[in-house]
Amino acid sequence: MIKVGIIGATGYAGGELVRILTGHKDAEIVWYGSRSYIDKKYADVYQNMFQIVDATCLDDNMEELAKQADVIFTATPQGFCASMMNDKILSETKIIDLSADYRIKDVATYEKWYGIEHKSPQYIEEAVYGLCEINREDVKNARLVANPGCYTTCSILTAYPLAKEGIIDMNTLIVDAKSGTSGAGRGAKVPNLFCEVNENMKAYGVASHRHTPEIEEQLGYASGEKVLINFTPHLVPMNRGILATEYATLKKDVTYEEVKAIYDKYYKDEKFVRVLEKDVCPETKWVEGSNYVDINFKIDSRTNRIIMMGAIDNLVKGAAGQAVQNMNLMFGLPETEGLELVPMFP
Amino acid sequence: MIKVGIIGATGYAGGELVRILTGHKDAEIVWYGSRSYIDKKYADVYQNMFQIVDATCLDDNMEELAKQADVIFTATPQGFCASMMNDKILSETKIIDLSADYRIKDVATYEKWYGIEHKSPQYIEEAVYGLCEINREDVKNARLVANPGCYTTCSILTAYPLAKEGIIDMNTLIVDAKSGTSGAGRGAKVPNLFCEVNENMKAYGVASHRHTPEIEEQLGYASGEKVLINFTPHLVPMNRGILATEYATLKKDVTYEEVKAIYDKYYKDEKFVRVLEKDVCPETKWVEGSNYVDINFKIDSRTNRIIMMGAIDNLVKGAAGQAVQNMNLMFGLPETEGLELVPMFP
Amino acid sequence: MIKVGIIGATGYAGGELVRILTGHKDAEIVWYGSRSYIDKKYADVYQNMFQIVDATCLDDNMEELAKQADVIFTATPQGFCASMMNDKILSETKIIDLSADYRIKDVATYEKWYGIEHKSPQYIEEAVYGLCEINREDVKNARLVANPGCYTTCSILTAYPLAKEGIIDMNTLIVDAKSGTSGAGRGAKVPNLFCEVNENMKAYGVASHRHTPEIEEQLGYASGEKVLINFTPHLVPMNRGILATEYATLKKDVTYEEVKAIYDKYYKDEKFVRVLEKDVCPETKWVEGSNYVDINFKIDSRTNRIIMMGAIDNLVKGAAGQAVQNMNLMFGLPETEGLELVPMFP
Amino acid sequence: MIKVGIIGATGYAGGELVRILTGHKDAEIVWYGSRSYIDKKYADVYQNMFQIVDATCLDDNMEELAKQADVIFTATPQGFCASMMNDKILSETKIIDLSADYRIKDVATYEKWYGIEHKSPQYIEEAVYGLCEINREDVKNARLVANPGCYTTCSILTAYPLAKEGIIDMNTLIVDAKSGTSGAGRGAKVPNLFCEVNENMKAYGVASHRHTPEIEEQLGYASGEKVLINFTPHLVPMNRGILATEYATLKKDVTYEEVKAIYDKYYKDEKFVRVLEKDVCPETKWVEGSNYVDINFKIDSRTNRIIMMGAIDNLVKGAAGQAVQNMNLMFGLPETEGLELVPMFP
Repeated sequence: MIKVGIIGATGYAGGELVRILTGHKDAEIVWYGSRSYIDKKYADVYQNMFQIVDATCLDDNMEELAKQADVIFTATPQGFCASMMNDKILSETKIIDLSADYRIKDVATYEKWYGIEHKSPQYIEEAVYGLCEINREDVKNARLVANPGCYTTCSILTAYPLAKEGIIDMNTLIVDAKSGTSGAGRGAKVPNLFCEVNENMKAYGVASHRHTPEIEEQLGYASGEKVLINFTPHLVPMNRGILATEYATLKKDVTYEEVKAIYDKYYKDEKFVRVLEKDVCPETKWVEGSNYVDINFKIDSRTNRIIMMGAIDNLVKGAAGQAVQNMNLMFGLPETEGLELVPMFP
Repeated sequence: MIKVGIIGATGYAGGELVRILTGHKDAEIVWYGSRSYIDKKYADVYQNMFQIVDATCLDDNMEELAKQADVIFTATPQGFCASMMNDKILSETKIIDLSADYRIKDVATYEKWYGIEHKSPQYIEEAVYGLCEINREDVKNARLVANPGCYTTCSILTAYPLAKEGIIDMNTLIVDAKSGTSGAGRGAKVPNLFCEVNENMKAYGVASHRHTPEIEEQLGYASGEKVLINFTPHLVPMNRGILATEYATLKKDVTYEEVKAIYDKYYKDEKFVRVLEKDVCPETKWVEGSNYVDINFKIDSRTNRIIMMGAIDNLVKGAAGQAVQNMNLMFGLPETEGLELVPMFP
Repeated sequence: MIKVGIIGATGYAGGELVRILTGHKDAEIVWYGSRSYIDKKYADVYQNMFQIVDATCLDDNMEELAKQADVIFTATPQGFCASMMNDKILSETKIIDLSADYRIKDVATYEKWYGIEHKSPQYIEEAVYGLCEINREDVKNARLVANPGCYTTCSILTAYPLAKEGIIDMNTLIVDAKSGTSGAGRGAKVPNLFCEVNENMKAYGVASHRHTPEIEEQLGYASGEKVLINFTPHLVPMNRGILATEYATLKKDVTYEEVKAIYDKYYKDEKFVRVLEKDVCPETKWVEGSNYVDINFKIDSRTNRIIMMGAIDNLVKGAAGQAVQNMNLMFGLPETEGLELVPMFP
Repeated sequence: MIKVGIIGATGYAGGELVRILTGHKDAEIVWYGSRSYIDKKYADVYQNMFQIVDATCLDDNMEELAKQADVIFTATPQGFCASMMNDKILSETKIIDLSADYRIKDVATYEKWYGIEHKSPQYIEEAVYGLCEINREDVKNARLVANPGCYTTCSILTAYPLAKEGIIDMNTLIVDAKSGTSGAGRGAKVPNLFCEVNENMKAYGVASHRHTPEIEEQLGYASGEKVLINFTPHLVPMNRGILATEYATLKKDVTYEEVKAIYDKYYKDEKFVRVLEKDVCPETKWVEGSNYVDINFKIDSRTNRIIMMGAIDNLVKGAAGQAVQNMNLMFGLPETEGLELVPMFP
């Protein structure tokens, strides 16, 4: 039984880790860390866990936790994990960091987009970018995994095969992404109040959102060139779900069948990636509560562009589900263990 | 492996049966009946099931299905199951009827409230009312189970211990219930369109809703007297969830602890009934996707009334989940098999 | 032109006052008071007002404002208005208080339910309870109006004619009320976050909500007896709207026509009260954005009860609209001036 | 007093025409045409209009109506208006067609994208494209106005000044648009049910939506060149609102101030176009219920692109509001008559 510690267990991603791990037969949570709710019963914070989780929230003492846990998930604000990391911790436990601290290889890029100093850049090189479908083998041997961002997971997986195969002009890539509100976290802020979000829609972080360089870096690896994109996130009045609509110019004439074959080449054996049937557009509701990424595309011969679409549940494949998928890989378990979550509809 | 047939597999309750049974390790679905989508792939109707369910929708030939299935779930309009039932079917398979056809023992009452003729009243007596927490032993031996209605499940379980123990005046009982819109089914009707339901709330079926006599009958058995109540359902702009707020006059002075002890007497060993801690009001979101009923109460000494509150997911404990719970009992499986669904939040 | 000052102009009720008064041809706002946003442009707080309102938020100096304004609306937390009130202010301006400070005649009752000391009880007697349909003549001559609460406006108007005519047993009255989330205000609190409210429903303040004594007092005046009721508010995932479902035992046999005649007696000339046609249930959406109260009822001869239903927009008839209606009366303007708001659907 | 006839008065756009015209002091509706609800009281279809509109729905006899009305609004399915049009009608009344029948000058393009034969192409040339801000003078003299589509109104106005001034490469233009569900109309279809739309988001009509050629044609006039764009609409779980996020490559280096000056050149005197302050992103809620278009932009020097954003209420500026704006121009009334609708928040 894998002993799991969670730091940040009372945020939405932390809560989703608890939900998923509760149904994982080879893992048990030994530490519900929550700076905001120390000494409060976890089920008093998340009443859905009443009579399921009996534990009390603990602090975020990572050194102490490292002694007790086989793996620590940090579902914490940017900078926290980096500020706590040290050799001793890494020698005692494995780390899956759901924040952005180790996602970007270039520390200057990190510091510029996040506006904070990186407190332990010496571990960036070692950290494995935990997008399982792409870095599976590296994840298996990792002791420090940078769990990808929600927008980035969806954006990258949707375009990855075409980037890798070089059929799109990478610098024409535009990612227009839409997210449910749980992506904004559980902080008490006026813009996230029900009345402000409901019956409303807006773009935010235009040309400046922090997931931009993460997408660029990963798609740069895939395509073998430096990539600059436009990424625009939007806030949608729903709890869960990310839909990414991506546009790129085709480098050459391709047919539906050719592009479909490329997607199949990369994804046909991937349990969590579903390339939909022709003309079926991904909908966030069809993946809700599950670890799936639903993907499809449409070629527009009028404009010589391809429109790619991807949908995930931001808290599952975009956060906690992918984190557990990484854990499974790191501990030699079946990759789908605890993740055979059937999407809930309606 | 129990062979399961579903008639009405493409309604919302039918879809939820599929979701739950997909994760049930001792059952397999052999028949996805759907009059509306015959010969269409099931996953084309419910895209969430893409790559999970590979089957094609079949017709609603209950006689043919009875030969193949160990149990048939009928998630069909009122009257359908009664019109198909015969001795041969009942000799070949077990039936769990999610419609109201066998819920009400008095056929005249059924025909009055539902406005249709009952086509096989000879089976009403045999049918077991499948509210597991109350009729567990009878369900175990049943071959025909009348799966309770969504509103009724919530309304009855919330008041049952107090009715049984005789501490409330049953004829003062008022049930004010609120339901998500999936309870209205998947039929294409203007009043169920997004724009008509969203940002809106209304009562409907006031003093005339069909679940009224079902609640009255069951609470009548519990209290040992004829019961007449007011039941008012309301439509709420959410997909899932029923919240019942129930009012009754207390027959005698009771303390919080006394009432709590009564609830505990009936429910403390019930896996799916959670009596919440003092002053915590049930919320539908805390049970979403799960088979739980969350219950609590408040004594108002000013008016000498008790206010009881119950919350369920109408598609799970209010339909498909309870149906599977009944199946588990009928086949001697652990009652919670396939139903250890952790509520999803947010 | 009436010079209007608003204290609390950046809360939801304050914002609605601004929306309504912007279209009022005989009033102009001279003071946008907002403790939270002093010196910030009002349209930066409420972007809908961009290029419509050019003013900057001011402080809540009521004494200074009293010199400039013909009428002051206080859309402020409980206790604020009472703490500021003095003879000088009342000699210089009229006050319409949207808080509860002057609604309840018995100061002990106020202090018990609100848990705060009343700082100026000497003005309670003078204050007129501003439910225009009931206290129209008193409002016309008032200099201090206590604008009714949102739940109370809806609850009282729905039951008033039957209470007044003595056909219901007042102490059987149960009010089960449901409200959109704007009623919870614009404060940044976790329970009001989009993800906590969306796809969720709950009761709150059970047997303890502050609007209870206000309803009891007013219906007590109507019926001529002391009234104790059960009032249960619920939070609904919508922005606006209150639906009250009310239950009472009939004192004698009455027909639909008799009850309809009673409602018509009180409301047939009321511009803002619409008694719907037989069997049409009020829906909150049908009054959204308007000052209407939609009312209907159903007699249940089985239980000898009557079920009354009322719907309002909590920010209009339940707050700002009624406040403007009071202003119109106080200044001798047509009562509907600025309030001919057509409900918006969908 | 202008006598107005509406054909299609019970659709969502028709209902909004009624709402707006009810508050218009120089117009009166003489004909509520509705094929679906003939002889039914209008207020029984739209209960919000109870005691406001007393009329009964009539048929869609355009010839008869032309004799009675000074202007006819056709809020009808594609093809209806074209099939009814003739010289006699046009000699007797003015027509504002809210369908697409006369929007596209090239009949072959219309027939290809809409998949129907145009029944009266002889009137296409005469019809004026009723985007008031662009074609104001032509509208004034028109007897047949093609009221623009909802997506197109938003998409065109957002990009128009930059297209006109030639600072963006028109063939790099990508319009990613998001719409509330009222845009899908009031037809009873499964995909528009509450449970299918709520908590869900999807693209649809990818590379094939009918508003594409309309946007291309109008922006082609503006830029003086043939324009091919990508336009992707998305369905959002809200009733009202369109948000268009538009991407284009800049032809030359420009500063924020230069682009702002271009927008101001075209829009600073436009009552219904609000170019927001720097870094404020348009939100659909801020224009809800009003005739405003809120616009802003962001230059991304990294990619040499500009991101433009526009928000409207699809039923007002995207349909009924703009239609009334056209009517005002055609009858020499103040352009804002009846349209001084303050956006409703929240």
